[in-house]
Amino acid sequence: MLRLYYLPLCPFSRKVRVALREKNLAAELIEVQPWAAGDEFLNMNPAGEVPVLVDDDLVVCDSQAICEYLEEAYPQTTLLGRSLEQRVETRRLVAWFDSKFGREVTEPLWREKLVKRWKRAGWPSSDALRRGAEAIRFHLAYIDFLYQQRKWLAGDELSMADVVAAAHLSVLDYMDDVPWKSSAGARDWYAKMKSRPSFRPILMDRVAGIKPPDHYDNPDF
Amino acid sequence: MLRLYYLPLCPFSRKVRVALREKNLAAELIEVQPWAAGDEFLNMNPAGEVPVLVDDDLVVCDSQAICEYLEEAYPQTTLLGRSLEQRVETRRLVAWFDSKFGREVTEPLWREKLVKRWKRAGWPSSDALRRGAEAIRFHLAYIDFLYQQRKWLAGDELSMADVVAAAHLSVLDYMDDVPWKSSAGARDWYAKMKSRPSFRPILMDRVAGIKPPDHYDNPDF
Repeated sequence: MLRLYYLPLCPFSRKVRVALREKNLAAELIEVQPWAAGDEFLNMNPAGEVPVLVDDDLVVCDSQAICEYLEEAYPQTTLLGRSLEQRVETRRLVAWFDSKFGREVTEPLWREKLVKRWKRAGWPSSDALRRGAEAIRFHLAYIDFLYQQRKWLAGDELSMADVVAAAHLSVLDYMDDVPWKSSAGARDWYAKMKSRPSFRPILMDRVAGIKPPDHYDNPDF
Repeated sequence: MLRLYYLPLCPFSRKVRVALREKNLAAELIEVQPWAAGDEFLNMNPAGEVPVLVDDDLVVCDSQAICEYLEEAYPQTTLLGRSLEQRVETRRLVAWFDSKFGREVTEPLWREKLVKRWKRAGWPSSDALRRGAEAIRFHLAYIDFLYQQRKWLAGDELSMADVVAAAHLSVLDYMDDVPWKSSAGARDWYAKMKSRPSFRPILMDRVAGIKPPDHYDNPDF
């Protein structure tokens, strides 16, 4: 029995939710606001962060550790690839989107606009928003570049690279922060992600007070 | 034949250097200043970051992807553990130190003091330095807490958790930014790390213009 503690508009939670479905694993979802969570949650994850996966009695913290765990505990479907070379390429791109894109785009846009709002921690820094808006164009161009050569970002099969990139972009797209018109290839790839059954549930999440743009949950956009 | 492109005072490069030695793997070391590296380096790693490992013809980018690769390609010695439960705990702490400690301590201290200096990108932000100096005390207390219950941070064997934590702390210690006196347990654990043959070479690195404190490379401190 799998349980996932998550936050709806959190890219790291979305990544695990999509990975679970791509691996055909059903999990009970429990919404948590980690900054307001009590001791019970902090005992599970002293880092005080979502997502946290519980598999029977085993508590697995950190989105990347969860995805590596799922590969090892449920190896029937792989999202990393079978060969060493493919796993190296998938993990390179997972790190690209979780770390580099995360630092250059997700942090300045998502953390400033949404996390600060949730924590009532003040207004977004306009300098951060400007930096994020500039950086996202470079990253969309990189997705374009990859997608010109491959069916999916890390090769000819869908992988964690697609899951991670789409999880981050979906949260930014909810805030209408993705300039899709600048990158036709990135838009085509994301349309393909949006039409996957694994991706539909996360596009149904809504946050009180913020309405996503009309194209947000429409695979033809 | 293994080659590692690295930067001496980079915590992510140090992590891979120590991991290689703990796995008894010899690698040729090539120093790179990624912000000044040319097209040849960017062709290997479009992210423009160190470390990069080259194993014969296979280029492996990102420190975490490199460590997962080393586990899969050279499984004789494991730094993650053998059981699923142990691997979950090791990876939780790897993420703790690379991501949480990285964001709360390494970024504000190392990036402000050293990376800005290397890139000639201005003076450190005093606000960031204050935040980093506060946060490191909390993390040392967490190391204390873990080390009271275990021989090493993730259990009774040395693991990637120790390697990552010590790699970050060693760079901060070079700048004398670790208040060891506040945490006797963390100091004892780090003294044990410093006396490992795998750790000695990184303590020999020196950077022009910055002298580390006297205790820096002394296991008895």
